[in-house]
Amino acid sequence: MSDRIIGAIEAGGTKMVCAIGHENGEVLDRASFPTLAPAETVPAMIDYFADKNIEALGLAAFGPVAVNPADPRYGRILNTPKIAWQNYDFMGDLVRGCGVPVGIDTDVNGACLGELTFGAAKGLTDVIYITVGTGIGVGVCIGGQMLHGMLHPEAGHVLIERAPGDDVPSTCHCHTRCLEGIAAGPAVQLRLGENNNVLSADPEVLEQEAGYLAQGLMTYILAYSPQRIILGGGVPDHTPELLPLVRTKTLELLNGYLSTPELEDIDSYIVAPSLDGNQGVMGALELGRRALEAAQK
Amino acid sequence: MSDRIIGAIEAGGTKMVCAIGHENGEVLDRASFPTLAPAETVPAMIDYFADKNIEALGLAAFGPVAVNPADPRYGRILNTPKIAWQNYDFMGDLVRGCGVPVGIDTDVNGACLGELTFGAAKGLTDVIYITVGTGIGVGVCIGGQMLHGMLHPEAGHVLIERAPGDDVPSTCHCHTRCLEGIAAGPAVQLRLGENNNVLSADPEVLEQEAGYLAQGLMTYILAYSPQRIILGGGVPDHTPELLPLVRTKTLELLNGYLSTPELEDIDSYIVAPSLDGNQGVMGALELGRRALEAAQK
Repeated sequence: MSDRIIGAIEAGGTKMVCAIGHENGEVLDRASFPTLAPAETVPAMIDYFADKNIEALGLAAFGPVAVNPADPRYGRILNTPKIAWQNYDFMGDLVRGCGVPVGIDTDVNGACLGELTFGAAKGLTDVIYITVGTGIGVGVCIGGQMLHGMLHPEAGHVLIERAPGDDVPSTCHCHTRCLEGIAAGPAVQLRLGENNNVLSADPEVLEQEAGYLAQGLMTYILAYSPQRIILGGGVPDHTPELLPLVRTKTLELLNGYLSTPELEDIDSYIVAPSLDGNQGVMGALELGRRALEAAQK
Repeated sequence: MSDRIIGAIEAGGTKMVCAIGHENGEVLDRASFPTLAPAETVPAMIDYFADKNIEALGLAAFGPVAVNPADPRYGRILNTPKIAWQNYDFMGDLVRGCGVPVGIDTDVNGACLGELTFGAAKGLTDVIYITVGTGIGVGVCIGGQMLHGMLHPEAGHVLIERAPGDDVPSTCHCHTRCLEGIAAGPAVQLRLGENNNVLSADPEVLEQEAGYLAQGLMTYILAYSPQRIILGGGVPDHTPELLPLVRTKTLELLNGYLSTPELEDIDSYIVAPSLDGNQGVMGALELGRRALEAAQK
């Protein structure tokens, strides 16, 4: 194993986690910067990496972001609600500021890549990583390559059906009944009410949440045919009862339509993340390693 | 262009279309055999190819079918309702009977590959082909490779929401509200009633059908991020009003969430098949060509 140092950025809407590590996924140091405007935040990050001797950098960024090298906007943040970041050439400024090859992907593709390279999906080729937190995002690996296509997956916004009587408004500004709008953290909080922020403490809301997530998972299984599904993010991470319920309800919805060895072992098929919250940073390390490899070809 | 002759089979539930052609997609001859039991149908097909000097064969088969070479059941038809075909080693018998390399994929992946190689999606890498007929199937190409994963996509069965007042029963034996069960040909026929089999002649059912298909397309766009969508099969093929309605309703459902050049040119984004019904056979030719190429490596 080489001793080369790789840089990693997990770029989120509220903070930027910067780290350095080895290409085997070992994280050596990390620091966090609040996500202000690019003119403030990006120089601070470049400064962090300046004396770290990194040979490449991986950037797992909030979206929408142009991650397809064939896109003329490649490396830019696109039409985000964060005005200061709209059309910002994030990758370009990092390349110029750090002087090393930079690999870029979405935050969820980064986390998926982390689990694929170092964690719960090691050795597999077709895997999805779902994060259920303030939003719902899906990272997708198909045939060993991260899915981009026209832009990148936005599968958190697939349509689902509300449970009868559930009139909590969608928290998505575009869709009245997409998975994110109905089942992400903010919608769960609306259902729990002001006096409770523990999903485990409300069996009815818990059951409903599991049903919504199972609808999403059913769609993902039928669409992507993944070999494994990793379900992470704040909501499942803090609600241990959720994963078993989601497994059961997903199988109920599929109703025997698919018969595969993977689905017969559902506890190994729908799993929690395995990298102690480091899947994003470790995925970004792998993005950096791949960028270095490509640059050396 | 080589003059090599390739064989092609489009294996459907009611008939098997066999053809020979060149690797540029030119079809030289074809014949059709009813889908009886394998012991009757397959020898007839092998006999058809016997004097055709084929150098490889492509098989685009009804599913479920094991299309992943890593699957120990590779090449077999799986748990189909057609009892005689369950667990049948379709590819193996063709390899033995024809003595040439055989490439296999699903019928819809075959059609998708046909459009990708010779038709409406030429030059693209991330494309889906939807067929709406007696069932709904989705062929998926990601990064230039057909999607298989755990099994293969079964995206015709993604969940959608019924329109208020639509109480026509689902025609899917597993799901009460999947796209296929609600929007495939048999469900449309139930809505049209006994005295009409022309969807164009019933504006209300037409509008509803477009809305259902648009729900499916929205999910596919968010999940796959395709560069182009081809919408084929008997229902759209015979209903010219459907495609424009589906385009409009898909954009309405997305509600501006995605902003890409492709979506801004929606008439070039969601399109009809381009190969006069030959996309399946031509895709099978390409499957054969790829099998030959792999065998010669």
